[in-house]
Amino acid sequence: MSDLTLYLAPGTCAMAVHIALTEAKAHHHVKVLDLAAEEQRSAAYLAINPKGRVPALVTERGVLTETPALLLYVAQRFPDARLAPLDDPFLLARMQEVNSFLASTVHVAHAHGRRGSRWADDAQAIAAMQAKVPQNMRDGFAEIERHYLVGPWVLGESFSLADIYLFVVAGWLESDGVAIGEFPRVAAHYQQMLARPGVQQALAL
Amino acid sequence: MSDLTLYLAPGTCAMAVHIALTEAKAHHHVKVLDLAAEEQRSAAYLAINPKGRVPALVTERGVLTETPALLLYVAQRFPDARLAPLDDPFLLARMQEVNSFLASTVHVAHAHGRRGSRWADDAQAIAAMQAKVPQNMRDGFAEIERHYLVGPWVLGESFSLADIYLFVVAGWLESDGVAIGEFPRVAAHYQQMLARPGVQQALAL
Repeated sequence: MSDLTLYLAPGTCAMAVHIALTEAKAHHHVKVLDLAAEEQRSAAYLAINPKGRVPALVTERGVLTETPALLLYVAQRFPDARLAPLDDPFLLARMQEVNSFLASTVHVAHAHGRRGSRWADDAQAIAAMQAKVPQNMRDGFAEIERHYLVGPWVLGESFSLADIYLFVVAGWLESDGVAIGEFPRVAAHYQQMLARPGVQQALAL
Repeated sequence: MSDLTLYLAPGTCAMAVHIALTEAKAHHHVKVLDLAAEEQRSAAYLAINPKGRVPALVTERGVLTETPALLLYVAQRFPDARLAPLDDPFLLARMQEVNSFLASTVHVAHAHGRRGSRWADDAQAIAAMQAKVPQNMRDGFAEIERHYLVGPWVLGESFSLADIYLFVVAGWLESDGVAIGEFPRVAAHYQQMLARPGVQQALAL
């Protein structure tokens, strides 16, 4: 029996870790933070994750953070769920490549629309960053549509963590001013994901 | 015998992959791109990596990109080098957590000083981003100094990919207006890394 507690907030990338745990049928607890109330900046939460962000996963051996790291941890901890091609270095690297691109490029592009104050103090600069969000999200998803989404799943026939993470990030497109329908393969993938019982269970949170 | 070709540019995060390959004593070829001449935007290179960035690793099965993914690939492909705790899910997740933080937070902070045009078109906004780079790099390295660098290596007694990646990113501090000496443990780690023959060999490029 695992003793895992995931700190998350709805609508954030932490949902990907929750979906991965649900898909893996892993016993786990969920604690929901209220980001609007800045609960991620409370002393209690900073003692868990000094970075003041979600996700954080409390394990028997300590706290782990960063979405791509947590996703791989779930796959390795619950290998029967086959959430990653753990024994194929090339395919695993491809999956990690997609997850890294989502984290370091696409999520970062999205964050410039909501948290521009991370990178500039000036209000006009923050507005200039917001203005460029739709273009950067389009560029990122064009890359995914053309090069990364083999179909039906990201890696082809095998479902993996990259599908879960892509689904969560694709869910941000509309609020970033981009219609998911601009990317027909991404849109079809999104619907496939919605139809999975594990995803439905996680979203019912 | 492996048939690997790494595309890199000196001073970029791609150097971490080169050091990992050298530390693993992996047979590989290196192709150096001239970023000042925008060689990463040439048609020839875009055919290899449509994202127009380094690193890219050409393998027998296809091209892989994204530094954290390539680092793990090197460790898994050359397991005798023991560059990652592949069989310990918690420690591997910790290593991946550090690598993810370096890629998605610290490298992104650094990039706002040189490539602000990724996130805003306005010259004043780009200047405002540049102004905040030292603070963001300081915040990132304070986190590493306090929470991630166990010592003597990132994970404690075991050398890993996180040491290689941290070394490369720490090498950017001075040009970002931050003295590495502000972080004594990071500074000591940097010197330890410089003393490794595999690192010297890679830097001799």
